[in-house]
Amino acid sequence: MTKRVAIIGAGPSGLAQLRAFQSAKNKGAEIPEIVCFEKQSNWGGLWNYTWRTGLDEYGEPVHCSMYRYLWSNGPKEGLEFADYSFEEHFGKQIASYPPRAVLFDYIEGRVKKAGVRDWIRFSTTIRMVRYNEDKGNFTVTAHDLENDRMYDEDFDNVIVASGHFSVPNVPEYPGFDKFNGRVLHAHDFRDAREFAGKDLLLLGSSYSAEDIGSQCWKYGAKSITVAYRHAPMGFKWPDNWKEVPKLVRVDETTAYFADGTSKKVDAIILCTGYKHHFPFLPDDLRLKTANRLAAADLYKGVVWVHNPKLFFVGMQDQWFTFNMFDAQAWWVRDAIMGRIAIPTDKAVLVKDVEDRVAGEDAGQDAHDAIHYQGDYVKELIAETDYPSFDVDGACEAFFEWKDHKKEDIMAFRNNCYRSVITGTMAPIHHTPWKDALDDSMESYLLNEIAAE
Amino acid sequence: MTKRVAIIGAGPSGLAQLRAFQSAKNKGAEIPEIVCFEKQSNWGGLWNYTWRTGLDEYGEPVHCSMYRYLWSNGPKEGLEFADYSFEEHFGKQIASYPPRAVLFDYIEGRVKKAGVRDWIRFSTTIRMVRYNEDKGNFTVTAHDLENDRMYDEDFDNVIVASGHFSVPNVPEYPGFDKFNGRVLHAHDFRDAREFAGKDLLLLGSSYSAEDIGSQCWKYGAKSITVAYRHAPMGFKWPDNWKEVPKLVRVDETTAYFADGTSKKVDAIILCTGYKHHFPFLPDDLRLKTANRLAAADLYKGVVWVHNPKLFFVGMQDQWFTFNMFDAQAWWVRDAIMGRIAIPTDKAVLVKDVEDRVAGEDAGQDAHDAIHYQGDYVKELIAETDYPSFDVDGACEAFFEWKDHKKEDIMAFRNNCYRSVITGTMAPIHHTPWKDALDDSMESYLLNEIAAE
Repeated sequence: MTKRVAIIGAGPSGLAQLRAFQSAKNKGAEIPEIVCFEKQSNWGGLWNYTWRTGLDEYGEPVHCSMYRYLWSNGPKEGLEFADYSFEEHFGKQIASYPPRAVLFDYIEGRVKKAGVRDWIRFSTTIRMVRYNEDKGNFTVTAHDLENDRMYDEDFDNVIVASGHFSVPNVPEYPGFDKFNGRVLHAHDFRDAREFAGKDLLLLGSSYSAEDIGSQCWKYGAKSITVAYRHAPMGFKWPDNWKEVPKLVRVDETTAYFADGTSKKVDAIILCTGYKHHFPFLPDDLRLKTANRLAAADLYKGVVWVHNPKLFFVGMQDQWFTFNMFDAQAWWVRDAIMGRIAIPTDKAVLVKDVEDRVAGEDAGQDAHDAIHYQGDYVKELIAETDYPSFDVDGACEAFFEWKDHKKEDIMAFRNNCYRSVITGTMAPIHHTPWKDALDDSMESYLLNEIAAE
Repeated sequence: MTKRVAIIGAGPSGLAQLRAFQSAKNKGAEIPEIVCFEKQSNWGGLWNYTWRTGLDEYGEPVHCSMYRYLWSNGPKEGLEFADYSFEEHFGKQIASYPPRAVLFDYIEGRVKKAGVRDWIRFSTTIRMVRYNEDKGNFTVTAHDLENDRMYDEDFDNVIVASGHFSVPNVPEYPGFDKFNGRVLHAHDFRDAREFAGKDLLLLGSSYSAEDIGSQCWKYGAKSITVAYRHAPMGFKWPDNWKEVPKLVRVDETTAYFADGTSKKVDAIILCTGYKHHFPFLPDDLRLKTANRLAAADLYKGVVWVHNPKLFFVGMQDQWFTFNMFDAQAWWVRDAIMGRIAIPTDKAVLVKDVEDRVAGEDAGQDAHDAIHYQGDYVKELIAETDYPSFDVDGACEAFFEWKDHKKEDIMAFRNNCYRSVITGTMAPIHHTPWKDALDDSMESYLLNEIAAE
């Protein structure tokens, strides 16, 4: 009997997993039967843009947290696939901070080439996963949304790749029930032009606040006020952008802050992060972790220590993204195919997690964190046939990126970096980010000027 | 062994079911053990207002479809509880179209008096219900959201009272992915003041379009354009309100209609209805019905014909509401307690449904539909000890209400009707609806002037 493996999600992590198995098959290995379940009608996960917010056409939570005009907020040189370069996909080197549509096209290019689309059941959400102690396998309850049919299937392994930047963390502040403007989470933000001419309040001090604020500034918001809980982001903001201490309360029209100041605002955007959310996993299988580099209860960052037949890909907080998902997916593939042995002593698995947590905690700053995650990527790829690449070089791109942000937060995307896969320097983009209002792939790829 | 009964939902239908059982207990009967599961942290269902939209604090879909400043869009004389009048609750008769907070208080008053709050597990959503053929009972998988604990419990009967005006039906039109303003469903509409000074497009021709358009008009929208698919609502609208044929497409700023006209709009509100949505019910238990008075597959409108241990309360389209839920809840209670026998021949159950569908289809207009549902309410209450009341009188209130809407859609709420429970005429409200900007209970209850 062939093993059967369920992959939950066909975003960057799930697609990495499909490519990992296809790669082994391509090299002549006998692979398990793979069934990937994807809630959306297309692949790409978060990168699959929709105008929808809240609940989708089937009444299911909308997965997409991205918005129009979104450009990568980190250099593409930090996330390039080792087995499929940007140059291979686009036929030339491209600039370093591609808009969403360009990255979607790149992600899709690799799996189109791999020919794995038939392995995916689209518009199918997972309602429940149960482990059968007697049979030593899992029963997965899937809901085919298009045909409104719920069914059970058994699998030997389950790989959860459903992401963790899709379910918003939505705090409440006094007065939200009376505020007359829109109160929305970053997850539901779609078009910065909706807020042109408006006074905006953003809560948060991480990537969402930084990028949604920047988008709104770029597309004509009247003012941006960002309230932080612990510390300001501290970039050199434009004149109509202000960071203030935490929000205390709002009334119908006005926000009041901890330093005694207040501001009349038209809308409030909660850039307050996301939750690990697995409504389809019972208590014995459900990952509960903070959003950190060393996730709880995952041996090697991927194996559920309480049941090593269950895997999670991409559940860490992320400096590395696509290439880390690849490192994990190749490793999980090899564990399932018996090429890598998972220790049978649970204490060993638990100790591995403890060591990873301690390793992360020993770091002092972002620099250490980037190296920590780079080392994790190196560790995993050393144990599989994933193409080796210059992980330290990718770390360098991240360090430069952070410096460029400090220099000019509204111009860091005008910089370019060298590919660690092909060695080619990226061209300078034809238009500074703040002036490039068209985020289409056609416009972005017009670039012809190499940086060297 | 005592029977165990699960009630899913503590909105108007679920609370009616709790009150039905408590009423029997109060009269000395031995009742089953009742466990009511409620996703929200408080009771009231749709009437439990929240500023939240999309996903809630636990990452679960927000149930509330109501908005600030919502007043009942039908006369309270059509929905009054036969066992708990408005006069009993408020100590006096009140005007006929109460704002949300007033009706919430009324609903809550009856169940507070009944003392059934302890029967409810709040912040607990149902993940799955399975029928066990071997044991002849149900396993209910509940998720205690506050403690993030999922668990199974067995029940002899399950009563689904989770509502069907909570999960939006969200169609897509060409260009929605490019439109620069907000596109939202009525489910996510919260504060009309957000749209003051705006040109609004509403899609739909039923209660949501009528009432959300009226709200936006009242609170200062610049213009209201309502696109219908089949026929206009045809009321005498204000000058800045226009009904147009169906939407064909939008671009970044402008909507284009089937009659060749177009309109630049700032936001689009989809008043396109709701779905029956039961992600926790497998195929053998899942109700699939159009939103109609004779729902599919429900004997007596409440018994699942494919498994008569499963009941659905409040799943019909509604002229009657609270009082119909009562009629159903008392009937379901008596069926579970063996006071009413459900025919064991499935063909009889199926025939009952067919007859109800034919009966509804034989009606010509709204007048017939109101009588049809009134007769259904009479049929059920005749078979239980629910206090008999003048159902025809309630129908009369609905007929008057429809006439008053035809006369002046922006003033129909200034009318008053006679209670069919106490016989008392409602007072005329102290302020015409269009001028009453404060929707608080305190303001509404200031009314002292009797209409006769």
